[in-house]
Amino acid sequence: MSKMKTLQGIGVSEGFAIGQAVWLEETEQQDCPETIAAGAEQEELERFEAACAAVKAELDKQIETMTEKLGAKQAEIFTAHRMMLEDPTLVDAVTEMINNRQSAVFAVHKVTAEMAAMFAAMDNDYMRERAADITDIGRRLTRKLQGRDNDGAAAVSNGIVVAQDLLPSDTALLDKDKVLGFVTALGGKTSHTSILARAAGLPAVVGLGGQLDEISPRATIILDGGAGLVLVDPDAATVAKYEKKLEDYQRWRKLLAAVKELPSQTADGRVVEIAANIGTPQEIAKVQNVNADGIGLFRTEFVFMGRTELPTEEEQFEAYKQVLEGLPNKKVIFRTLDAGGDKELDYLGLPPEANPALGLRAVRLCFSRTDIFKTQLRALLRASVYGNLHIMFPMISGLEEFRQAKSMLNQAREELTRQGIACKQKVPVGIMVEIPAAAVMADVLAQEVDFFSIGTNDLVQYTVAVDRMNEQVAYLSDYFHPAVLRLISRVIEASHNAGKWTGMCGEMAGDPLATVLLTGFGLDEFSMHAGAVLEVKNLIRRIKTDEAQAYAKEAMKLGTSAEIRAYLQQIKQKYTVSED
Amino acid sequence: MSKMKTLQGIGVSEGFAIGQAVWLEETEQQDCPETIAAGAEQEELERFEAACAAVKAELDKQIETMTEKLGAKQAEIFTAHRMMLEDPTLVDAVTEMINNRQSAVFAVHKVTAEMAAMFAAMDNDYMRERAADITDIGRRLTRKLQGRDNDGAAAVSNGIVVAQDLLPSDTALLDKDKVLGFVTALGGKTSHTSILARAAGLPAVVGLGGQLDEISPRATIILDGGAGLVLVDPDAATVAKYEKKLEDYQRWRKLLAAVKELPSQTADGRVVEIAANIGTPQEIAKVQNVNADGIGLFRTEFVFMGRTELPTEEEQFEAYKQVLEGLPNKKVIFRTLDAGGDKELDYLGLPPEANPALGLRAVRLCFSRTDIFKTQLRALLRASVYGNLHIMFPMISGLEEFRQAKSMLNQAREELTRQGIACKQKVPVGIMVEIPAAAVMADVLAQEVDFFSIGTNDLVQYTVAVDRMNEQVAYLSDYFHPAVLRLISRVIEASHNAGKWTGMCGEMAGDPLATVLLTGFGLDEFSMHAGAVLEVKNLIRRIKTDEAQAYAKEAMKLGTSAEIRAYLQQIKQKYTVSED
Repeated sequence: MSKMKTLQGIGVSEGFAIGQAVWLEETEQQDCPETIAAGAEQEELERFEAACAAVKAELDKQIETMTEKLGAKQAEIFTAHRMMLEDPTLVDAVTEMINNRQSAVFAVHKVTAEMAAMFAAMDNDYMRERAADITDIGRRLTRKLQGRDNDGAAAVSNGIVVAQDLLPSDTALLDKDKVLGFVTALGGKTSHTSILARAAGLPAVVGLGGQLDEISPRATIILDGGAGLVLVDPDAATVAKYEKKLEDYQRWRKLLAAVKELPSQTADGRVVEIAANIGTPQEIAKVQNVNADGIGLFRTEFVFMGRTELPTEEEQFEAYKQVLEGLPNKKVIFRTLDAGGDKELDYLGLPPEANPALGLRAVRLCFSRTDIFKTQLRALLRASVYGNLHIMFPMISGLEEFRQAKSMLNQAREELTRQGIACKQKVPVGIMVEIPAAAVMADVLAQEVDFFSIGTNDLVQYTVAVDRMNEQVAYLSDYFHPAVLRLISRVIEASHNAGKWTGMCGEMAGDPLATVLLTGFGLDEFSMHAGAVLEVKNLIRRIKTDEAQAYAKEAMKLGTSAEIRAYLQQIKQKYTVSED
Repeated sequence: MSKMKTLQGIGVSEGFAIGQAVWLEETEQQDCPETIAAGAEQEELERFEAACAAVKAELDKQIETMTEKLGAKQAEIFTAHRMMLEDPTLVDAVTEMINNRQSAVFAVHKVTAEMAAMFAAMDNDYMRERAADITDIGRRLTRKLQGRDNDGAAAVSNGIVVAQDLLPSDTALLDKDKVLGFVTALGGKTSHTSILARAAGLPAVVGLGGQLDEISPRATIILDGGAGLVLVDPDAATVAKYEKKLEDYQRWRKLLAAVKELPSQTADGRVVEIAANIGTPQEIAKVQNVNADGIGLFRTEFVFMGRTELPTEEEQFEAYKQVLEGLPNKKVIFRTLDAGGDKELDYLGLPPEANPALGLRAVRLCFSRTDIFKTQLRALLRASVYGNLHIMFPMISGLEEFRQAKSMLNQAREELTRQGIACKQKVPVGIMVEIPAAAVMADVLAQEVDFFSIGTNDLVQYTVAVDRMNEQVAYLSDYFHPAVLRLISRVIEASHNAGKWTGMCGEMAGDPLATVLLTGFGLDEFSMHAGAVLEVKNLIRRIKTDEAQAYAKEAMKLGTSAEIRAYLQQIKQKYTVSED
């Protein structure tokens, strides 16, 4: 048996697979005549139109299937392909070539290759990966023109698909029950293959480059989609080890699915909220998929972005109403406009700043442009009658700012009432705790706010004085910094002393390594990206409050982030290993 | 009596004056022949040389007198004038004109006017104000050439000098005991007139522009050098009010002068240190002038600035040694390089950062460029044998960074010892507390550092998340923010619990409004710009510790900066009004 080889790629979809490598042959065939006979143009054009129609029908069918199986979001790729197919750039160019007596297959290949090259040269990761889409359309058209259908990908059965690149049409044709995972030389985190693999729950490692040649046809390989690893020709011990991992992982997935309908509470029955952070009404489906308890952070920036002027009160009202109606009976915390800083809105014409993170952001901007703030507050209040709306102000540094924001909210409510426009008279109003000053003054602020939501990303940024986007100092950015933990713990305590509650909507809330600690601190609401909800919920359901408190106390005796991380890693093991 | 007029200028030297306006006539006389007779060139050249010699002698005498009366620093202007007089540009140009049969007076006037115009057109305030120097030299030479001496300025007696512009030679000729103050149409904060007025302790308001015409000859005027106000033809009530202010101010100045030799301690005998912040060895004189207890912050950046490459260990050693030798027996805290952020050193070629204040600054930069750090630490350790040297690391965010810096210091010491180079084996090592994380973790850090020094400017910046240089949000930057005060108070307490001491070297330490509060918190060392030392010392000497503690406790019950400021203003009144 040949020696085991370890290949390192980019893990884009977690999970494990052990099986035979099945090389997906390139289906693109270029052994076709470049030209056609004089007089054959009309016939060739008709062949091309028929191929287009057939591909469109195929795509329509796939859109339908995908929507049914994985939701509308995942089918968007094929909708996009369908639109590209109707793009005159493509159709006109091919038509012209055929009229010049070039074959349809040759013309399709040449035109799509040129378009793909144009995308590939773009400066933006997302656009670059769109090159694969156009190549994929070319491939589909070629198949139809050559009378070949569902070859290649469709033939794979009970193996791990290995290919230079995997086009969306390939993954769509594969029978998920017969494919164990994907390994490719090209691709990145945002390529459609990666997205589809994640949606289908299949492990995938991409970006292996030249290492792919190490995988001979029908070799046994092990795929670790979380770690981005591919083990080629593994020895028996390794196979056994990964069989165990695979089994654990499958049990784990099942457990998470089961936990979905169970209440969010600790092992000893303390009820918490496990909510999601979203930024568009389109994301509501994701929230429903994991049965999150509510929205701990709804970023209202989306209403202001991708446009050339401020949204009207009416536009905002409709958007907020749509969110509330999509989540009946669930709490939705709307954060007021958090623009400025790194979130620029060109049409506001804000001057550049030497340190935008320490500049005219969020409520500061709203206080300097009260027209914007007032309009948003009116829209939120109007929407309040359609659900359980909460309002949260970002970047509050102290009592004065909170009072100012609250007073503007009250003015807006009085105006609406005077105008006879419906709005709730009582809406819970809280603040983001993301500036150290607010954390330090939490006891005072807790007297006047209805709730806190800790924004760990900014809180770390200011507490440790480090821009986490700055590669040179990003190593200092860590929410397990003991100072950050002290502030978090004190904020929660201060809120409880005043009979209020504290949530967290920063990245930390969705990190399972932090769950025991935050439970020990008494955090009331964990709000995170929807993908983390079930894992955190499962963990919380295993934790006993008094145990968590004891662990938290121990952790807080440690002086450095590194020690705290190591300790929490140990504790987390106790909860995951012991019961799995 | 005519109605009182209020003129607003730039107050460049504080203090009050009430008296008659004495207009200083322009002494420049241009009623002289432009040309000389053929053959008279040699005689005219000799007259010019004699005038130069006479002015040099006059300057030498003034340099001697000024040095005696006001110190070497203040005499530098005249040294500069003397050098300009020897400048071949001036002498050669005049000589050439005389050789072309133009009169010495005309030649001097023309050449100095051209040179002054050149300076005046420069882009830099400092260089622009040098135009006055060259005009002044021209005026002196003209006086000598015309046989007029000590006219104009010297004739002023018992009045407030009013002039379009006042040249250094004028202020030098004035008898300070007979002049009450200065008022000019031109000039700025850095003009020599302003500097000399401050040095002589005379009030001055400059930059009045056209408003100067409101002052008729021999009008009664009141000068408020602190506020930049000139009151023309004041009514009796205003005169009485300002007579009281003048009296208070004089008593105040006397008191400060008396306090200079007294110990730095509270009324009940608690000894504190009142130190100065400086950044060059040249500033040592200022420190000695006010008899500060030491240097609470020596900024080492000066060794790195105004050059094209890094300073060598030897250069740094010499500079640090010079500082220590200039302050025998006094504690000098050297802060290691605080470059990066807004303090750029071009030759390091650092990449631009989106948020430099949250980027690769201070120790972070030193950790990434250990060559720079090690060289500085070696130079500091070598200098340590020449005085009471302390080392302080800036921008420490936690224990790990302090340990890393300390360990590099120990390595440097071991190296030196191995190489047989003298250095102290024990040097006190502290940190700047300017990042909220360090303040929050002060109890833990206090176990390992020898002392803390709170940097309020950055501490406010990060705690409140506001760049105080950003005009749009500068209103939020306030060291009386209750969160900042809590952090300061906890840092001091934590250091005392560990048997360590805490200083403060930010702007707040020199603000008399903060003195009672900081004394109440138990601050051990106040380090400030030299100009504030005596006032703060005087205040501290009046404060009883238990009273200050009670006031501090009251202040900390208030929820906003505005309330705290108002309360402290009241308290400060008690100490200043009651005894003056």
